[in-house]
Amino acid sequence: MGSITNIPYDELTIGQSASMVKKITNDEVVLFGCLTGDANPVHFDSEYAKNTRFKTRIAHGMLSGSLISAVLGMQLPGTGTIYLNQSLNFCYPVYIDDAITVTVTVKEKKEKNRVVLECVCTNQNGKIVTEGQAEVIAPAEKITCQTFSLPKLKFA
Amino acid sequence: MGSITNIPYDELTIGQSASMVKKITNDEVVLFGCLTGDANPVHFDSEYAKNTRFKTRIAHGMLSGSLISAVLGMQLPGTGTIYLNQSLNFCYPVYIDDAITVTVTVKEKKEKNRVVLECVCTNQNGKIVTEGQAEVIAPAEKITCQTFSLPKLKFA
Repeated sequence: MGSITNIPYDELTIGQSASMVKKITNDEVVLFGCLTGDANPVHFDSEYAKNTRFKTRIAHGMLSGSLISAVLGMQLPGTGTIYLNQSLNFCYPVYIDDAITVTVTVKEKKEKNRVVLECVCTNQNGKIVTEGQAEVIAPAEKITCQTFSLPKLKFA
Repeated sequence: MGSITNIPYDELTIGQSASMVKKITNDEVVLFGCLTGDANPVHFDSEYAKNTRFKTRIAHGMLSGSLISAVLGMQLPGTGTIYLNQSLNFCYPVYIDDAITVTVTVKEKKEKNRVVLECVCTNQNGKIVTEGQAEVIAPAEKITCQTFSLPKLKFA
């Protein structure tokens, strides 16, 4: 169990950013498959994937979007953030074992605590794999809270 | 292991739709947390959630987006689809144990096999929780392929 402290609307500045790095291993791809039911062989079957335009297995594109939501909810603005909308452009495939850096940057502060953030996911070669824009209602007050202790998962 | 057959570009018609229903239980919320690292207590801690505007625990909004991607990749257009972009508006919270119906509908066929689809997620009361638009490159050819046998997950 850890704790997180948010960055309320009044403390947000244009250009402020937060990021996380996450390696997308086979486990993440299997987890995303279990979560959504997306068992398409392009994500799981190397032989099948050889005959696709990608030539090798790729991760689900929306995995990047899921990581963006985590940075918004945990870091910037963090806890108390209300997610309004998100655009996502899937620019380049995420391959198994890519290390994805997710960065969100404050682009615009609007009225009623609304904030627009640029969201960029790059791979270990600096190539943009996913980019888009989020709009949120930033929290009005500073909050520190305990995070949940996530369990370990086992594949049976 | 099952098999899926896609709907190639030439067979797609405006208004054609596909859907799936998925109950978002505590397990899905924990899984999404494990996958993304989003351990915000609004998703996990009932006592904390009581004092938020939602009054009770809510699922991660991006979970709906993840289900949309599964319908596009598995059903319509299905295997061989290239995901180009997605917009998502988070209209209403998803609460634990909501049964979410995800429907994607062909809205426009463009040149170079590009297709625009409307994406709507509703809860068991018919309320729209998430809606948006996807653009994909639909597969040019009919493909039938074996889906991957996803493992059972255990929380340790």
